[in-house]
Amino acid sequence: MGMAVTVLVLLVQGAWGQDTQPASPAAIAEKAQAGVEATQTAINTVWTLLAAFLVFFMQAGFAMVETGFTRAKNAANIMMKNLMDFSFGSIAFFVVGYGLMFGASNGGFFGTDKFLLAHADVATGDGLWQMAFWLFQIVFAATAATIVSGSMAERTKFGAYIAYSIVISLVIYPISGHWIWNADGWLAKLGFHDFAGSTVVHSVGGWAAVAGAAILGPRIGKYVKVNGKTRAKAIPGHSITLGALGVFILWFGWFGFNPGSTTAGMNLSIATIAVTTNLAAAAGAVAAMCTAWLHFGKPDTSMALNGALAGLVAITAPCAVVSPTAAVIIGLVAGVVVVLSVEVIDKILHIDDPVGAVSVHMVCGVLGTLMVGLFASPAYIAASGVACEPGLFYGGGLKQLSVQAAGIVAVGGWVLVTAGSMFLLLKKVNLLRVSREEELRGLDIGEHGMEGYNGFQIFVTE
Amino acid sequence: MGMAVTVLVLLVQGAWGQDTQPASPAAIAEKAQAGVEATQTAINTVWTLLAAFLVFFMQAGFAMVETGFTRAKNAANIMMKNLMDFSFGSIAFFVVGYGLMFGASNGGFFGTDKFLLAHADVATGDGLWQMAFWLFQIVFAATAATIVSGSMAERTKFGAYIAYSIVISLVIYPISGHWIWNADGWLAKLGFHDFAGSTVVHSVGGWAAVAGAAILGPRIGKYVKVNGKTRAKAIPGHSITLGALGVFILWFGWFGFNPGSTTAGMNLSIATIAVTTNLAAAAGAVAAMCTAWLHFGKPDTSMALNGALAGLVAITAPCAVVSPTAAVIIGLVAGVVVVLSVEVIDKILHIDDPVGAVSVHMVCGVLGTLMVGLFASPAYIAASGVACEPGLFYGGGLKQLSVQAAGIVAVGGWVLVTAGSMFLLLKKVNLLRVSREEELRGLDIGEHGMEGYNGFQIFVTE
Amino acid sequence: MGMAVTVLVLLVQGAWGQDTQPASPAAIAEKAQAGVEATQTAINTVWTLLAAFLVFFMQAGFAMVETGFTRAKNAANIMMKNLMDFSFGSIAFFVVGYGLMFGASNGGFFGTDKFLLAHADVATGDGLWQMAFWLFQIVFAATAATIVSGSMAERTKFGAYIAYSIVISLVIYPISGHWIWNADGWLAKLGFHDFAGSTVVHSVGGWAAVAGAAILGPRIGKYVKVNGKTRAKAIPGHSITLGALGVFILWFGWFGFNPGSTTAGMNLSIATIAVTTNLAAAAGAVAAMCTAWLHFGKPDTSMALNGALAGLVAITAPCAVVSPTAAVIIGLVAGVVVVLSVEVIDKILHIDDPVGAVSVHMVCGVLGTLMVGLFASPAYIAASGVACEPGLFYGGGLKQLSVQAAGIVAVGGWVLVTAGSMFLLLKKVNLLRVSREEELRGLDIGEHGMEGYNGFQIFVTE
Repeated sequence: MGMAVTVLVLLVQGAWGQDTQPASPAAIAEKAQAGVEATQTAINTVWTLLAAFLVFFMQAGFAMVETGFTRAKNAANIMMKNLMDFSFGSIAFFVVGYGLMFGASNGGFFGTDKFLLAHADVATGDGLWQMAFWLFQIVFAATAATIVSGSMAERTKFGAYIAYSIVISLVIYPISGHWIWNADGWLAKLGFHDFAGSTVVHSVGGWAAVAGAAILGPRIGKYVKVNGKTRAKAIPGHSITLGALGVFILWFGWFGFNPGSTTAGMNLSIATIAVTTNLAAAAGAVAAMCTAWLHFGKPDTSMALNGALAGLVAITAPCAVVSPTAAVIIGLVAGVVVVLSVEVIDKILHIDDPVGAVSVHMVCGVLGTLMVGLFASPAYIAASGVACEPGLFYGGGLKQLSVQAAGIVAVGGWVLVTAGSMFLLLKKVNLLRVSREEELRGLDIGEHGMEGYNGFQIFVTE
Repeated sequence: MGMAVTVLVLLVQGAWGQDTQPASPAAIAEKAQAGVEATQTAINTVWTLLAAFLVFFMQAGFAMVETGFTRAKNAANIMMKNLMDFSFGSIAFFVVGYGLMFGASNGGFFGTDKFLLAHADVATGDGLWQMAFWLFQIVFAATAATIVSGSMAERTKFGAYIAYSIVISLVIYPISGHWIWNADGWLAKLGFHDFAGSTVVHSVGGWAAVAGAAILGPRIGKYVKVNGKTRAKAIPGHSITLGALGVFILWFGWFGFNPGSTTAGMNLSIATIAVTTNLAAAAGAVAAMCTAWLHFGKPDTSMALNGALAGLVAITAPCAVVSPTAAVIIGLVAGVVVVLSVEVIDKILHIDDPVGAVSVHMVCGVLGTLMVGLFASPAYIAASGVACEPGLFYGGGLKQLSVQAAGIVAVGGWVLVTAGSMFLLLKKVNLLRVSREEELRGLDIGEHGMEGYNGFQIFVTE
Repeated sequence: MGMAVTVLVLLVQGAWGQDTQPASPAAIAEKAQAGVEATQTAINTVWTLLAAFLVFFMQAGFAMVETGFTRAKNAANIMMKNLMDFSFGSIAFFVVGYGLMFGASNGGFFGTDKFLLAHADVATGDGLWQMAFWLFQIVFAATAATIVSGSMAERTKFGAYIAYSIVISLVIYPISGHWIWNADGWLAKLGFHDFAGSTVVHSVGGWAAVAGAAILGPRIGKYVKVNGKTRAKAIPGHSITLGALGVFILWFGWFGFNPGSTTAGMNLSIATIAVTTNLAAAAGAVAAMCTAWLHFGKPDTSMALNGALAGLVAITAPCAVVSPTAAVIIGLVAGVVVVLSVEVIDKILHIDDPVGAVSVHMVCGVLGTLMVGLFASPAYIAASGVACEPGLFYGGGLKQLSVQAAGIVAVGGWVLVTAGSMFLLLKKVNLLRVSREEELRGLDIGEHGMEGYNGFQIFVTE
């Protein structure tokens, strides 16, 4: 950092100039203009990096939510999954994934260059910018992988989880991501709008999560037959405190996720996006709490926490094109939907999703993507400078809504087929699920030869 | 984000220009000047948003401190309160509170417009800036609400807490806030200086906290009669680890709270403010530790943690107008005072404040507000560009100190009367306190139908 | 903040100008140029402060890692140590340490002014910048102190720990820091390159950690004699969940530690540094997991977590001068080395380091410092603008590598002698280690008169 001080001095000296004779007005003006441009690039870089750091921190949030809502006997396994999906995902996305997503497009379907960061020539300003943009993308890719961890918790072999994490970061996420976030992607060209990833990130994770949970089957003891009827049994998590901490961390990180997706601090709509993000989350928590209160007779804490996440997922696609009031409505709808969805998936479909990942990320991801087609407002579209048609409630007819629906179907199909095939294959070769014995005792000992907690008296239950 | 790249390119192209013939020096100069202004607005927006994100994260800190210092049987209730006060508070402040605080002033007492963010026209640069400023304000409003949660922990009905949270965010906080932070507020016009909210935020929360705790009464088993004398019994918290994590998160978030209150990254006194904030917190922890060591014979961890918070609350008002050395002194004083205050409130006044919220936020909020009148230094006032007279120790006489004292009395009276009335009313209609049975068993089951921890062997004590 | 709005308006008005007659092109151009310079200073200040905030938050990470990997009976003591080393360290560095490190150099060995922030005149732009730089340095100094806490956990007297913390922040860290990060330091003049502190921060902490752990001796029950042979017994930590949370927080904070060490947002190599930092951490986790899997037969979660930290420590010196691919290699090497080092230190050297601090910070700090001499690439050196020779693998021969080795030896010797003497002295006067009785019962009760956890059934083991 002694060096760093020198650099700073040089930069400032460079700016102040060291001319021995007075410069002409034109020379000063041109120098100032060059200074403005360098400064704006720096703001955009600083903003994008800081947003990426916040999104990285969401890994801690996901880890806390998942472990908080599951049992103590699997805590070390859950920490390990959340650490390693990001770690393997980073390497996989570096080597292959980023190129498939943002490389030169092959017919709108996948990219063909920009592997290994080879395109980022640090001798140029653009190369340095590419580094910042890359970091922002890798933390997004990791989010998609992490979502699946929750729905498959407490019974999946660690090796299978690692294999899956690599495949989603390497291929599944980048390809559907290419369709939407590469300017030459086929859905992008159709006009599909998903500002920060209700579909690209959350639904991709959510579709894989539902495929995984369904193929894996429920945890032992989750569903019991009573008089020929299947009854769902609640398996409470071991720490609502950690689960809540996780939700606060995720909400915090989402301020990087959504506003950061401008990847430009010079684009002042970052302020609007932060406001819509916050209001949707708040409304989601309120609506989920009220729905749970009506439905269960008491305001369930887990449901309110999932309501906040539901609002966040739902606002992720439309955050840049809707008004604050619309954001409140979107959050309220998501908060109601997530509670009903958790009930339907658990009690009617009998898919065992220990943390509600499918309802939060897939269902509300789809919901949020559709909301663009309803609430996109011309004034907000103009302010953020994105390409999007006005929604149904703002005089735009069904045009944007149809494109949104088409994108949802395409991405859902892609992920269900690819992730589903992978999970079926792993199941076939008996690598997907731990033994009954291990599941009962806990994956911490079986998979990792250790315990998550020591010194506490812990009841190991089914 | 494919879009986002396009936007960035357009912005940069706009800056670089696409002229086919050379521009005149005057044209280049004017363009550069416009670029400078746009860039400075962007820095101010980026800074204010990032600071707001940090302040938001303080919600996690408050939640961890409150749960760490209380019993395991109430953990889910405490998480729920901290989630919902922010969520309901966000909506209430959006609809009404912000307008009452920052709207056009009615005689210096309350605002009359800017409800529902209607004033923020996103077609204008100012409208986007208003969004950023609004976000910064909502996270502050939520802090005031959250403070009360701690002093009333482990015995308040959840419904009552929600009702209270809405009222403080809707009316109580915005009105006294209007007096001080609206340029037309009557205390602002008197010259009252509270840079980041020792009074506006912390004392408001703290006065409501003391009213609530006193009206609610102590937890069962907290005070016992021994030979006709009331003896205070310690009820230790269930996790010092989580309590400490909360304090670290709060300290981290305070770097948004205080330096962010410039709401301008172009105002370089953000650096001074960060330094004074950090030194006061450190000195507070040191002083509280030493005081506790002398007083109890051992360095109590909870007291040192509260000492750091005491230093932070006390430096919040004067952070922009005092020197680093003065910040150390302020922190040391706050650290001593908070330990004595906790003792007095508990053992002499017999008000049961489970986490020490009244001592930290009300007592040290008052203390910090007065410190402006003692330590405000002309050099620091000039550097930060705020309106404040020099303090008593810097040749300013009693002028600023008197105004500070007047503001403290006015705000204290306002909050005690309004919050006190509300709590008395809730008590009267028997909505304030849970049943004895529920309190003994824990609010998690009684209020939310769940448990905070599962699988651990937990002793449920009085 | 009402004030703050006024300030912002004034700033913007200042920029817009209020001239009543049209300005000349030269005047506009000069004004724009001045605006550019002010704006760039603001970006550098904002960036440095935000990075400092992130580094501060690493204190929470260190606290969680240390407590997670140790026993519940010492949790309150560990929280207290992590709070107080930062607090005392802040004051010590403010009064003396910063001046010794960054003051005018006495022959390249130590600084002689800049005590008590006396050099930062807030009437000048430079003075405000000095405040920001100072904050960045204090959070670094605290990191060095904290590292030692881990290796000496569960058996050190609290008073001894405080004494040590003050000495390292006051003298030990600033003096070797002066050699390297003061432009006039003797190692800086030799060409030693340590961008963000693999040696300056991590090895200094790590050398003190190994001295402390060795002099203190192992925890009771850690090593048992079986048939005349010493066998190491694992003493598992009480919460892998909190340990993992700590690692995520540290990784997050490292994005301030490394990229922030440009102390200039205008230096776009911040993007490259963030990328190399992330990739090395990911590769470290992957390599440590694989090494542990091969070595122990199962993928141990603690080892993978330490692998991520190992990658982070190792990339800290070379982060600005190596390519992303080199960063992956550095991380992989660090991940393998940390697992082997933990085994050697525990099972061969029989030094009891409860959290692996010596392996992570000293061993990987040395490793990372050497990596500069191997992987420093001319293109990356040029892009970041630092002074460094190309490494061995980039045609630079052994020149840089030799200087790196010399610096490692000098700093290692300095710290081993000074910290070692201090610990030996404390041991001699019987102030270093708690009694056998207290160690068995836990330091929470013995040192602080309280318990870290209440209400849980906890087994107190050796």
